[in-house]
Amino acid sequence: MQEIFCDRTRLQRMLDVIAALARAEARVGVIPSAAVAAIESRCRAEIFDVDALARATAAAGNIAIPLIKDLTARVASGDAAAAGFVHWGATSQDTIDTGLVLQLRDALALIENDTARLAHALADLAEFHKRTVVAARTWMQQALPTTFGLKAAGWLSAIDRHRLRLRELKPRILVLQFGGAAGTLAALGADGMATASALAGELELALPDSPWHTQRDRVVEVATVLGLITGTLGKITRDISLMMQTEVGETFEPRAPGRGGSSSMPHKRNPVGSAVVLAAATRVPPLVSTLLASMPQEHERGLGGWHAEWETLPQICALCSGALAHTIDVIAGLDVDTDRMRANLETTDGLIFAEAVTMALAKHLGRMPAHELIESACRRALEQGRNLYDILAGDSKVNALLSDTELTAMFDPLNYLGSAEQFVDRVLAQHRTTNQDVT
Amino acid sequence: MQEIFCDRTRLQRMLDVIAALARAEARVGVIPSAAVAAIESRCRAEIFDVDALARATAAAGNIAIPLIKDLTARVASGDAAAAGFVHWGATSQDTIDTGLVLQLRDALALIENDTARLAHALADLAEFHKRTVVAARTWMQQALPTTFGLKAAGWLSAIDRHRLRLRELKPRILVLQFGGAAGTLAALGADGMATASALAGELELALPDSPWHTQRDRVVEVATVLGLITGTLGKITRDISLMMQTEVGETFEPRAPGRGGSSSMPHKRNPVGSAVVLAAATRVPPLVSTLLASMPQEHERGLGGWHAEWETLPQICALCSGALAHTIDVIAGLDVDTDRMRANLETTDGLIFAEAVTMALAKHLGRMPAHELIESACRRALEQGRNLYDILAGDSKVNALLSDTELTAMFDPLNYLGSAEQFVDRVLAQHRTTNQDVT
Amino acid sequence: MQEIFCDRTRLQRMLDVIAALARAEARVGVIPSAAVAAIESRCRAEIFDVDALARATAAAGNIAIPLIKDLTARVASGDAAAAGFVHWGATSQDTIDTGLVLQLRDALALIENDTARLAHALADLAEFHKRTVVAARTWMQQALPTTFGLKAAGWLSAIDRHRLRLRELKPRILVLQFGGAAGTLAALGADGMATASALAGELELALPDSPWHTQRDRVVEVATVLGLITGTLGKITRDISLMMQTEVGETFEPRAPGRGGSSSMPHKRNPVGSAVVLAAATRVPPLVSTLLASMPQEHERGLGGWHAEWETLPQICALCSGALAHTIDVIAGLDVDTDRMRANLETTDGLIFAEAVTMALAKHLGRMPAHELIESACRRALEQGRNLYDILAGDSKVNALLSDTELTAMFDPLNYLGSAEQFVDRVLAQHRTTNQDVT
Amino acid sequence: MQEIFCDRTRLQRMLDVIAALARAEARVGVIPSAAVAAIESRCRAEIFDVDALARATAAAGNIAIPLIKDLTARVASGDAAAAGFVHWGATSQDTIDTGLVLQLRDALALIENDTARLAHALADLAEFHKRTVVAARTWMQQALPTTFGLKAAGWLSAIDRHRLRLRELKPRILVLQFGGAAGTLAALGADGMATASALAGELELALPDSPWHTQRDRVVEVATVLGLITGTLGKITRDISLMMQTEVGETFEPRAPGRGGSSSMPHKRNPVGSAVVLAAATRVPPLVSTLLASMPQEHERGLGGWHAEWETLPQICALCSGALAHTIDVIAGLDVDTDRMRANLETTDGLIFAEAVTMALAKHLGRMPAHELIESACRRALEQGRNLYDILAGDSKVNALLSDTELTAMFDPLNYLGSAEQFVDRVLAQHRTTNQDVT
Repeated sequence: MQEIFCDRTRLQRMLDVIAALARAEARVGVIPSAAVAAIESRCRAEIFDVDALARATAAAGNIAIPLIKDLTARVASGDAAAAGFVHWGATSQDTIDTGLVLQLRDALALIENDTARLAHALADLAEFHKRTVVAARTWMQQALPTTFGLKAAGWLSAIDRHRLRLRELKPRILVLQFGGAAGTLAALGADGMATASALAGELELALPDSPWHTQRDRVVEVATVLGLITGTLGKITRDISLMMQTEVGETFEPRAPGRGGSSSMPHKRNPVGSAVVLAAATRVPPLVSTLLASMPQEHERGLGGWHAEWETLPQICALCSGALAHTIDVIAGLDVDTDRMRANLETTDGLIFAEAVTMALAKHLGRMPAHELIESACRRALEQGRNLYDILAGDSKVNALLSDTELTAMFDPLNYLGSAEQFVDRVLAQHRTTNQDVT
Repeated sequence: MQEIFCDRTRLQRMLDVIAALARAEARVGVIPSAAVAAIESRCRAEIFDVDALARATAAAGNIAIPLIKDLTARVASGDAAAAGFVHWGATSQDTIDTGLVLQLRDALALIENDTARLAHALADLAEFHKRTVVAARTWMQQALPTTFGLKAAGWLSAIDRHRLRLRELKPRILVLQFGGAAGTLAALGADGMATASALAGELELALPDSPWHTQRDRVVEVATVLGLITGTLGKITRDISLMMQTEVGETFEPRAPGRGGSSSMPHKRNPVGSAVVLAAATRVPPLVSTLLASMPQEHERGLGGWHAEWETLPQICALCSGALAHTIDVIAGLDVDTDRMRANLETTDGLIFAEAVTMALAKHLGRMPAHELIESACRRALEQGRNLYDILAGDSKVNALLSDTELTAMFDPLNYLGSAEQFVDRVLAQHRTTNQDVT
Repeated sequence: MQEIFCDRTRLQRMLDVIAALARAEARVGVIPSAAVAAIESRCRAEIFDVDALARATAAAGNIAIPLIKDLTARVASGDAAAAGFVHWGATSQDTIDTGLVLQLRDALALIENDTARLAHALADLAEFHKRTVVAARTWMQQALPTTFGLKAAGWLSAIDRHRLRLRELKPRILVLQFGGAAGTLAALGADGMATASALAGELELALPDSPWHTQRDRVVEVATVLGLITGTLGKITRDISLMMQTEVGETFEPRAPGRGGSSSMPHKRNPVGSAVVLAAATRVPPLVSTLLASMPQEHERGLGGWHAEWETLPQICALCSGALAHTIDVIAGLDVDTDRMRANLETTDGLIFAEAVTMALAKHLGRMPAHELIESACRRALEQGRNLYDILAGDSKVNALLSDTELTAMFDPLNYLGSAEQFVDRVLAQHRTTNQDVT
Repeated sequence: MQEIFCDRTRLQRMLDVIAALARAEARVGVIPSAAVAAIESRCRAEIFDVDALARATAAAGNIAIPLIKDLTARVASGDAAAAGFVHWGATSQDTIDTGLVLQLRDALALIENDTARLAHALADLAEFHKRTVVAARTWMQQALPTTFGLKAAGWLSAIDRHRLRLRELKPRILVLQFGGAAGTLAALGADGMATASALAGELELALPDSPWHTQRDRVVEVATVLGLITGTLGKITRDISLMMQTEVGETFEPRAPGRGGSSSMPHKRNPVGSAVVLAAATRVPPLVSTLLASMPQEHERGLGGWHAEWETLPQICALCSGALAHTIDVIAGLDVDTDRMRANLETTDGLIFAEAVTMALAKHLGRMPAHELIESACRRALEQGRNLYDILAGDSKVNALLSDTELTAMFDPLNYLGSAEQFVDRVLAQHRTTNQDVT
């Protein structure tokens, strides 16, 4: 992702647009065919001085102005006539925006690929741990048993929705920007639409209904979807880092040399990947807000709003993409301590099974009496520091209704998982459908 | 929109969910049919004390807990047996989230309706002013002529894209939330899926692959799309308020008694509608950021993140909806001073036509010589405070190439509009397609 | 805080300004003294129809316009001559902003009082637990021992800095807004400054160097400081909610009927107060961003930016104040399980003391050899699942250097607390200084 | 500012801390004096491989870990014994945070210097244009006359308040961070405080009451004040860019080669400096929100929150500093067209003076009759397209009360400026006081 948005590539994408414009205009007959080669051959980023262009940008107002000036001079040095046709009829924002669209095409391809990889890793995790019990935690407190497979399925379900969102937004963003100085293509006279169409063809972009210089929803939508993705990545790693706590110890990021350890504190296994992802999940939302806030751009070219996009969108792409890469690492190499997951379910001395026993007794006693019986038993368990099972096993009313085998079974988390497995299966089925839909 | 999200309606939507749950569970055989009527008949918001529930919410942690407690007591007073089956197997977040989805269904219907109304008003404006010339302004400076119809078409094009986005997100948000305390429906034993399916049917919502208690992308996506819409509304009113400036005077918000006038400053016509919309466009982006930032919710129930959603999403809905209503008012009743638009094109003493003349001369002289000739003429025009037309009309080189009729024509903005009309037609065609797609 | 910012109080504060203006202008001789009583007597919020004013606000552009119109009519009904002097020479923003300043004066007094209360509760906690050992956790992993007193002292130190910030900002915000329609007080002719000075005196506000209608740093600064405070409250409750986890169990929010418990999950003790605070800490930062973003207000009266402030600043005040109240509750009634704190230090089977032993052995062996010896011992402890103490107690090289008494002491967290106590004392000393400074 | 926060300088500031720590510890007797030179001599950024360190950072979790490892190896290669004392007793966050404080000391000095420069330029502008009339504009509509000097004074007043804020925050941020792995300085045994004190002395920083590893208000406060400053800069350039509009033409950014011009649109004078500043004013608020949102950092070292600060705070510093530099350029070289300012006051055909005449007539007629007379005259002026002066000059009732000289004077904006000049003088007096206070 860093390569897609580095200064050099950014320059190249703008030069790609300029070269394609020359070809398109020659094809339509707007400029002489003879000019194309002279222009195209200079449209190579490596021959430009990136730093000098950056310095000139501040005074000129945007990067395309000094770039086109420099390029024109280079073309002129070889073919004075051709130089007159560099960037013919286009405005600097045409080149900057279309160049950005070309970058976003690469960026979205990478994000799509990585969300697919993450989804597959999560699907494996969900499938493998379909029957691995772990405490469901609400308010960061143990609530009832669930499965680690269902946890992973929840993560997967969100990632698969993001993959559909990416598919839906692409037709709106992978479009040409081409309107000339006023958005009318006036400099091209009657040839505007034909040229626009030819240019879109050259770049394999769709031709939008009209230029969108100050209608920024196309680009900002990309940011919002990347924001949603990053939010989900934050959720995944929030869970994992909570499970990595010394006192919980249920999952661990993969070990690697120099990764997350501490020689003076040998017991530590720091969630370094999760930290990167959580930092991204903290930074991306306000950056999305920047882009939304910059949408009310003035008239036919924004003053400040457009400029606010330039670094912000690449940052969002980089943060989301980096977070994706780290989450893939963490998930693909996740150490899962299933024994500890099960052992942690003992922390509450059986109280976590109170609801399960209540439900079972309710069939015999009715709901309210069952509830009262268990509530009283729980109180005794807490006061006496004993396991709820022991209290109930010693309760004559319970013994009259439930055999010890039955009672014991109720304290097995595997017997109180409800529809967990079916939910996992539904998510995995949806995952297979998504895989087909997005390809 | 305020009605959809008021305390009373919010309560009713949760009660709708609870009533539907009783019906669904009776249908599936999870609770006795006899309990349904007793529960259903109490699920009416008007019998509850909203303020008392609000006070109890702080201690309980969410609104559903005291609501269900209160409802259960009311049911019990009439039918003690039925009371045991209130909210059977559900968790408070099931009810709160599904209630929210029901509210969002109404909210999105309203937003869809209003975006359609705005689109139609903009389509009329674009069609009507297809040949109305106005200065295109870049950097808030006059650049070249364009048409007011193209300006309106640009606004329309964005609104129509939003309508497609709304259509796409609905299947993801109009879904049931139902997972019970741990997201496993454990309390329903083997009847979880059947109950969930029946409940979804009762509420005419889709059944999602799994509960999404801490996968918040569904709700946050709504916020992002409303954020994009509000951004476009800000863009529209930014333009209009700039055109309403005393020194510009091209468009005006509709007059109405008590609206935007000032008795001590009778020349003023304040853009009061635009101000409301621009305020919304300032407030919504950070609120969207709040929701994105709240996505990494812990384990099976968030701590703080979920709570941060409760007031934020309704605020976004209200701000977007209010901004839509104001924009519809402004656009539907917009006063357009086409004479002033044309007159303002004279402000630059003909310099705004420099590019048009250059392009025309380039056919005779080649691009560079034409450019140099006009550049020099512009310099003289500025120095001498004369109109560029007069300078050129007195230039022998120009006279040799262009007749006075030709030269005069070049200073008519209607002759330098390029593809503006075609762009408007394309946007209007797209608008008709969108109208079909979204219905 | 809700009372300070409710519609009724807001109206009253504006009416207070209008009444004070009449008194001030009569004193200076700008309006007849006879008009004062007629105006003053109608400046009571309870006689106005809040809903009707709210409806009129949308069309008028701000609340002050219909309020003044309504007030003028009421004054006129009793004293037609006096009605001509209502709000003489002022503009609606003068009244709205100065009314806001009066609200903020009350709001800041409340915040100052509550930060002081919280500071005192934290000081008690820091003092009381100066020698209570608890695991210091970095990356949410146990690192080394620290004291709970030092944890509390860290929270206290931040709160006390906020109290100084509040003291510093007050002179900048507790000032009059009074400039008339253009910020020149032109309607008052030569009496502008005298009137302004008298009005400031009436309201016990400072007279600023000039009107600040579109210089919003004064109000936005309030938001930033409340944002900083809310951030610290989020930090405090983040820590407490982490310590409340089932597997940690070191601190608990105070018990209260109906608070954070669950009848079907009797082991739970939900951090309901912390959730409210963490939600505020999620919501306030973007709201601060709204206000910062709204600062570039146009010319002499903003268009949208000012309007964006109206609801945002009260929300920030309410969220910060609510978070403060909840944090005070949590801290003042905090259950601290010092036994569990100490027991949790055993979780790592002695590895948490590795650094302490290394430091001790380094005096005998040099740092590197000591480090290697302990690293190897830790490896064996982990592999064999034994306590590090046991490994070392059985190591002949260690036995040669350290007596068993010495070795045992190194595994007592109380012996590896460094300067913790001194830091607590320094914070408490600073607290006493702050108490003096802010009063 | 870019230099202060570049990778190389960042490294150097951390190395400065490490070198100072060695000196301090030798002074206190914690490490042998012999080790100091070996350590100090390697604490030079230019000998490190920045890219390699950046790569290692991802796995290690922060930059200080690989830096210290690398540094230790370099020291060891020359003096094995000294290597054991590199970074003795400190934790990586000590070095990163204190290094950041050293960077912020430089950054704040630069910001202080530039705000002073801007203030001086604004003071000159305010003084020079104390009697230059210009339209005051509310809602972006001409309201009444004011002076350009008062406009500049408003900007100045805000900048001078920021200078006081900068002065106030410095004692809170220019402090040492030094707590060791757990914030207790345990590794230094009884020497913690003495070492801390010596280290603070070496670095000329204050010694805080306690370490502040997860109490981030000190650093976030810097961001909030820079956010306030950037907001004011946005306000200044918002005004200037509005005044630069083609139809307004009152002020212009300074001309420079290649700056803001367009060869094909010679009439343009683009506000390129203002665009940069407005972009900063759009980008900084959400970045401030990022830092506020990252404040609730877990326990003794944050997970994600701290990491979110690393790039965000330098970006804020760079954006604010860049915006300051551009605003200084714009203000110091501002072209002011005082003729156009006065001419624009004619745009409303005299209606802008309606209030002035009303006030004058009120002395003769009473307020209400005067108001009605003028309101009717204004209506006629608008209907007949005539200047209000002409209407009034032909009104017998007016003629009876006012001589033509008197009436003419009322249409001179210089005669309706109220306290504008006094406000300017007060701001300039406050400016002189501020200059003294901040030095």
